[in-house]
Amino acid sequence: MLKYQEIALKIEKKIHFENLEQGSRLPSLGELITQYQVSKSTIVKSLAVLENRGIIFQVQGSGIFVRKRKRKGYINFMENQGFTHDLEEFNLTSTILNLEIIYPNEEIMNNLNCSANEEVYWAKRIRYINGQTLCVEESYYKKEIVPYLNKEILNDSIFEYLQNALNINIGYSDKYLKVGKINTELAAQLQLPDKSPALFVEELFYLNTGEPFDFSKTIYNYEHSQFFLQGSNAKN
Amino acid sequence: MLKYQEIALKIEKKIHFENLEQGSRLPSLGELITQYQVSKSTIVKSLAVLENRGIIFQVQGSGIFVRKRKRKGYINFMENQGFTHDLEEFNLTSTILNLEIIYPNEEIMNNLNCSANEEVYWAKRIRYINGQTLCVEESYYKKEIVPYLNKEILNDSIFEYLQNALNINIGYSDKYLKVGKINTELAAQLQLPDKSPALFVEELFYLNTGEPFDFSKTIYNYEHSQFFLQGSNAKN
Repeated sequence: MLKYQEIALKIEKKIHFENLEQGSRLPSLGELITQYQVSKSTIVKSLAVLENRGIIFQVQGSGIFVRKRKRKGYINFMENQGFTHDLEEFNLTSTILNLEIIYPNEEIMNNLNCSANEEVYWAKRIRYINGQTLCVEESYYKKEIVPYLNKEILNDSIFEYLQNALNINIGYSDKYLKVGKINTELAAQLQLPDKSPALFVEELFYLNTGEPFDFSKTIYNYEHSQFFLQGSNAKN
Repeated sequence: MLKYQEIALKIEKKIHFENLEQGSRLPSLGELITQYQVSKSTIVKSLAVLENRGIIFQVQGSGIFVRKRKRKGYINFMENQGFTHDLEEFNLTSTILNLEIIYPNEEIMNNLNCSANEEVYWAKRIRYINGQTLCVEESYYKKEIVPYLNKEILNDSIFEYLQNALNINIGYSDKYLKVGKINTELAAQLQLPDKSPALFVEELFYLNTGEPFDFSKTIYNYEHSQFFLQGSNAKN
């Protein structure tokens, strides 16, 4: 973990464990520099991370404040898959339907930027939220990058394994989403009537070199999934 | 516009107009400091903005690179409403169904944190993408913060008006989303069969003081809407 990530995590944990309210003022930039004994640009980067994750907001010339969302019971849309998080309020479990090494079809080749004879791990899971079906998820991992996977790892946090055990540097991800109707197979897996509405999400995870290594397709049960997303004007 | 936002915009425009490819290397941090004649912490902040908007990725010890997504024809989910953007690939138009000043009901009061006798602008629009129905959108603006609105402003970029004409400092937004089925009224407005699937999005926009001032409810036509979202590991 890099220094700015470490400091960001420390500030986040402090906000969480001290249960600071929406709008609470944090120490100033100068005070944070003294407190954490790091450079100004490290603190600036830590604060940018926290601002973009919706944990703080910064007002130029006025201060740094705690940001809390109004509604509970929503899943963090940006952090519910790969970038798993410690402080979740839900009980998430899963059943593995499939885990094997395959050769990719056209769709997987296009997304993972690989050739037909490059081996790929194919993992298929049903995930549950508080005991109810949340989604069906199929993931394809380039075996060249992820040489070993088993069911135990899949049941834990796979991204923790990739980052900590395999030392894979995950760079970023692209999500694509649309709404549609589910087919009979998905309906059975999600325990819903045929042709029910659903959110279809495809996601590509990249190494920090820009190479895609994980392509995932997830279909959510519309009755048990609602999400939140936090935007920051710092994006502008 | 603050200095770091200005520099971020300059770098983004450069990438756009020079049509730089995925993975193209940008000048180093030191070179950018010299080129734009700003401090290290300003450049660090500009780069954090660009990284979180999915325009660049940074590899510690290696460099700063252009990031491009693989798929075209998807709408930017984080930037399609309030935080409008110059370089869009779609033709977005709208029809205003309603614009009037009302007193808020329970739902609006809860979301905007206001009382029953505080006036609110209520705007209802159908938005079109390339001539087809994209969504039905209802927005509620606190009149105390947005004292004047008309149809012309609504047809333009309302957020540009808020920021530039009214000098409103937009801080951040929370989005809440779920999938469901549309009723007969929405079906007529979206030109879809009754009970079609749809994405339901509620969004709260806050001033940079943390006060909510705009509550919006948007229902998307599932046949004409597909979205992308870009994640960054810098979020971790």
